[in-house]
Amino acid sequence: MPQNRYRKSHKKPTLIAMDFESILVPEIWISIAKKTRIPELRLTTRDVPDYDQLMKKRLKILAKNNLSLKNIQSIIAEMEPIAGAKEFLDWARMNFETIIVSDTFYEFARPLIQKLNHPTLLCHLLETNNKNQIIDYHLRESGKKENAVKAFKNLGFRVIAIDDSYNDTDMLKTADIGILFNASSNVVSQFPQFSSCHSYDKLKTFIQKV
Amino acid sequence: MPQNRYRKSHKKPTLIAMDFESILVPEIWISIAKKTRIPELRLTTRDVPDYDQLMKKRLKILAKNNLSLKNIQSIIAEMEPIAGAKEFLDWARMNFETIIVSDTFYEFARPLIQKLNHPTLLCHLLETNNKNQIIDYHLRESGKKENAVKAFKNLGFRVIAIDDSYNDTDMLKTADIGILFNASSNVVSQFPQFSSCHSYDKLKTFIQKV
Repeated sequence: MPQNRYRKSHKKPTLIAMDFESILVPEIWISIAKKTRIPELRLTTRDVPDYDQLMKKRLKILAKNNLSLKNIQSIIAEMEPIAGAKEFLDWARMNFETIIVSDTFYEFARPLIQKLNHPTLLCHLLETNNKNQIIDYHLRESGKKENAVKAFKNLGFRVIAIDDSYNDTDMLKTADIGILFNASSNVVSQFPQFSSCHSYDKLKTFIQKV
Repeated sequence: MPQNRYRKSHKKPTLIAMDFESILVPEIWISIAKKTRIPELRLTTRDVPDYDQLMKKRLKILAKNNLSLKNIQSIIAEMEPIAGAKEFLDWARMNFETIIVSDTFYEFARPLIQKLNHPTLLCHLLETNNKNQIIDYHLRESGKKENAVKAFKNLGFRVIAIDDSYNDTDMLKTADIGILFNASSNVVSQFPQFSSCHSYDKLKTFIQKV
């Protein structure tokens, strides 16, 4: 078989890289803010643009309120995936390699990941002291979501990325195909190059089409 | 906190990258050879060192014997993971990110991956014609197992790699920690730098230690 024809027909497996919060589960810090009734924990990078400042602020608030990692984990354990998320994810994993790329922490995500039947998750780590207080956080080096997409492209996958927010449009741009899911109308109108939808059924249809 | 101290204490999440055949499931081509009673399908790269020649030979044998992809898939669907493999993998996925890196094909692996509760699998693709005959195969670009290990290291993981064969020792060398599992005594004695074991219980103990 001539080299050319082979190259031309070279097929790639598809990998779906999707965000976690707002895509499969509710926003974790907002759920913690609600349950603890500490409105300051609702702050996001929209309010405090420097992520390190924001995280240090959050950890101070937890310490001030004597909330240990275990306390937070038991709040998160009561959270549920978004209705239909597990069925959508099961379908995606049955048909494609599907991984979750998130800026949450393994220690927070674990109970939700269990409810979703253990998909692969790339995220970050927390550090606790001997009183189980969260004293620091460790972002993965190259933790930016678009780096995960690049890595899987380099490993020979065609990557479909799914995300919701302005911050993550670099991940969508880096992927072979980017889809906005549950994004605000503001983000949708700023990025007309990406398909956008708000239901798992439509998301399935988009994925099947491409 | 001074930059230095932070760097020093930087924690990385652990990711386990393990091979599929001989580690979690029996060798697929050998199982096909047994079921079809076609001993030529037992040939491996030990017999035909050029992988492309070997694969073309295998596809010719399947064609000559009128074996379609569906026929092969129904043979594979009768295979079972190695005893204890699912329990080991469940444990690994509960405690670490765990992915499978294999030189098999998605079309072959699917029924076994289902029995193992859908872990993430990086492998290759087959191509069929309209008669469901396998006419070609497509290796992922950068499909070498050590490239997957490199990619996850670059994404900020500490990688533990588990494999069985001489061919895959580059993957073990590239990882932060390499473990030989179910390897021949020949390979074990040639690579004394890697821990080696033949039971999932010992494998668990090794992983917990490192």
